[in-house]
Amino acid sequence: MIGIFSSGLGGLTVAKAVEQLLPQYPLLYLGDTARSPYGTKGIEAVIDYALENALFLCSQGAKIIVISDNYPSAIAADRLRLELPVPVIDLIGPTVRQAVAASTTGRIGVIGSRATMESDVYRTEIPRKKSACTIFSLACPLLLPLIEEGWIDKRETKMILRRYLYPLRNRQIDTLILGCSHYSLLRHLIQSRIGKKVTLIDSSLAVVDSLQTFLTAHATIPRQEDHTHSENRYFVTSLTESTKDFAAQIFHRPLDLETL
Amino acid sequence: MIGIFSSGLGGLTVAKAVEQLLPQYPLLYLGDTARSPYGTKGIEAVIDYALENALFLCSQGAKIIVISDNYPSAIAADRLRLELPVPVIDLIGPTVRQAVAASTTGRIGVIGSRATMESDVYRTEIPRKKSACTIFSLACPLLLPLIEEGWIDKRETKMILRRYLYPLRNRQIDTLILGCSHYSLLRHLIQSRIGKKVTLIDSSLAVVDSLQTFLTAHATIPRQEDHTHSENRYFVTSLTESTKDFAAQIFHRPLDLETL
Repeated sequence: MIGIFSSGLGGLTVAKAVEQLLPQYPLLYLGDTARSPYGTKGIEAVIDYALENALFLCSQGAKIIVISDNYPSAIAADRLRLELPVPVIDLIGPTVRQAVAASTTGRIGVIGSRATMESDVYRTEIPRKKSACTIFSLACPLLLPLIEEGWIDKRETKMILRRYLYPLRNRQIDTLILGCSHYSLLRHLIQSRIGKKVTLIDSSLAVVDSLQTFLTAHATIPRQEDHTHSENRYFVTSLTESTKDFAAQIFHRPLDLETL
Repeated sequence: MIGIFSSGLGGLTVAKAVEQLLPQYPLLYLGDTARSPYGTKGIEAVIDYALENALFLCSQGAKIIVISDNYPSAIAADRLRLELPVPVIDLIGPTVRQAVAASTTGRIGVIGSRATMESDVYRTEIPRKKSACTIFSLACPLLLPLIEEGWIDKRETKMILRRYLYPLRNRQIDTLILGCSHYSLLRHLIQSRIGKKVTLIDSSLAVVDSLQTFLTAHATIPRQEDHTHSENRYFVTSLTESTKDFAAQIFHRPLDLETL
């Protein structure tokens, strides 16, 4: 079983991509909505939360753990790899690999939450894969609440996005990393604001791509040809009406969310 | 000493009003930023957090506790009154009293966070003070992140506010409760959108008014004529750059925030 956890609901974009691209694998999701957002917590606390989440998924039968949001990937992945008995796939490595492969000029933009941008993870990791890169990172903290409120098509969201992306427009980037799993849902809007020539790297899709490669190479989890997505289980640590609405918005169907 | 706690930073608007209106009283503030927002947590969890916060303030010498945001006031005030050895002032009672006194038509609007609106506290409490009232409540969840980001004067904020308040405009309310302590900072904008004829009741100011009345009537805390606001102490459970920025924005000075 594939175990996916997230500090909140952003990781549902990853879970949805797994359902679509890897339908023959059973999936278990945990969104730690009660302690969301992680960005305001201390690093040690976030590592503890990530460990707790992953251990819960392992106890439910997960044979591989996917960290499906950027901030815990940035600060807790190494520790999880040390402590867990199963493989751990985080979101940063696959995203960085896709970004450096896509960029020809080496001028790469990154947008994400304030916590992820302040962790400087992309600024640190990209040069490890390709030294001659110039990174422009930009925190866009209001995008997450706008997305979670379902304001994706609203005029105000387009204006706020334009305001955020403005400083990136004359940086001549050829690649832009969507360094927050929520941003998948704004992909089209971001593409039209930043221009068609810029390649978008969606961290939610990059991690699923990496998972797919891993599952093909290693027989960690057997395929189940008769598996349907209705057998997948979705857990949250706190459930509100807006949680349900947001999940339904991503999956285009009501999701049966179980509370831990 | 006056002890004020809040689930995050909204209560700083209350603390600032206390500094201005009751400058001769020493003040101790605790913002539980690490566990903010409370609105996504279960009711029992929020009561526990509120108790912990209040007990910390008592351990530091607080002789009266002020709950300075709406959601914990709505669900935890009764329990705190049972458990604490000091008087507890919450924000709902004073706000309701001011609102029913101000309204002549009995048509009262309330805006606030989704959690406060879903708690239905104003819809329950207002009729207890004045039976012939019609309450129109409206959750405005994006206002809080916009305010915390310091986007108070931005065009997008004005547009979002207009969109939120639109359903209230033809309800012929004569009184509007700002049922979130953050909204103090948007007061002028809200007044201009809803119209000059509507009386705004600011829950942050209502609770300070109530505190002032209490302190005049009871000698719980002696006045200290030589007390200055620089002796007041401000604690948070998690400290980030944006926390500091937001506090400075409210107080028009850098605030010395101590981390617990």
